Amino acid sequence: MNLGVLVSFEGIEGSGKTTQAELLYHDLKTKGVPVVLFRDPGSTEVGERIRAILLDPKVKISPWCELFLYLAARSELVRSAIIPSLKEKKVVILDRFCDSTFAYQAFGRGLPSRRVSVINKIATRAIKPNLTILVDIEPTKGLKRITHPHDRIEAEDRAYHQKVREGYLRLARRARKRIKVLDGDKPKEELHLEVKGFVYPLLREKGYRL
Amino acid sequence: MNLGVLVSFEGIEGSGKTTQAELLYHDLKTKGVPVVLFRDPGSTEVGERIRAILLDPKVKISPWCELFLYLAARSELVRSAIIPSLKEKKVVILDRFCDSTFAYQAFGRGLPSRRVSVINKIATRAIKPNLTILVDIEPTKGLKRITHPHDRIEAEDRAYHQKVREGYLRLARRARKRIKVLDGDKPKEELHLEVKGFVYPLLREKGYRL
Repeated sequence: MNLGVLVSFEGIEGSGKTTQAELLYHDLKTKGVPVVLFRDPGSTEVGERIRAILLDPKVKISPWCELFLYLAARSELVRSAIIPSLKEKKVVILDRFCDSTFAYQAFGRGLPSRRVSVINKIATRAIKPNLTILVDIEPTKGLKRITHPHDRIEAEDRAYHQKVREGYLRLARRARKRIKVLDGDKPKEELHLEVKGFVYPLLREKGYRL
Repeated sequence: MNLGVLVSFEGIEGSGKTTQAELLYHDLKTKGVPVVLFRDPGSTEVGERIRAILLDPKVKISPWCELFLYLAARSELVRSAIIPSLKEKKVVILDRFCDSTFAYQAFGRGLPSRRVSVINKIATRAIKPNLTILVDIEPTKGLKRITHPHDRIEAEDRAYHQKVREGYLRLARRARKRIKVLDGDKPKEELHLEVKGFVYPLLREKGYRL
């Protein structure tokens, strides 16, 4: 299919993935590449409403309900924003996508991976990123960077974030070609160069001028 | 398993199912039967937040997102309210449950039944009602009974509600033993007698004193 390119950014709280997603977005925009940036969950009206529930530290949400809420937001994002953008041959940058679900809900909460996988496939119409940048960081360091009051996920204990980090690294070992692991300890400018080192060749290969 | 009993009420907007669920609840309570009444979506903190999104006529929600939102609310309700109540041998009365999903999302929105079924099973932990009362009514009549401003579902066109009604009737034909169809045109007192005519024998059979 002659479509656009999907690049997702993943990582635990405070890893710097959002910063890297935004730096790449602005870089590509400046260079005249057709590019959009979405956050998952979010970036649609209903998705932002769902996000507000998911991050509210006052709400109690059980693991399955949490999974379905993330997938509800993702279903909407995929159908109303990601697929239309890919059809317009845009580069779609995602701040989180499917790997978050495996890291947080399967590895982190202990939900069975196979079931998560079946439902996630339905939610995403089996769309997968062409490239995933995993910004890895030690949980204590990541959480220290957060200056706002902690949301529901950030407020989880260190053991949870450790499981999520390990989940991410395991996913990366299973999909070495797609998932590139960066050291979140490095300065953001250096990381941005590394990100471009992975993204530019992919975009050139897909026919974008850079 | 020596558990409680699950009775769900189903029907299109304005059918009178909520009234019948409440009448049964108060009747059983008066008779000293341990009973709880939940509405799906709803009856949990996160479920009520999800319900507010689903019924908001200003929000645009695509069919898959809608499905996942209903199942998010249901997952929470099943795990935090229904199963604990059944374990306490209570009679659990539900104002809507799985059949709504098949009628509204599969028949009404056209989502594939098999996929809906797979995901619904995960959301409900495969719990099924012992008895379902379907209050059937012609959509135009049902919608005429609604006096408040229409919510997102009520605001759908007549053709949609007609599909939902037909979906319900088809489900009832497939599960004659479980689903009992009542004529929603009858006065509520008469319907309440019919409901008791189905519920009492079931409860006696399960060892409740009535």
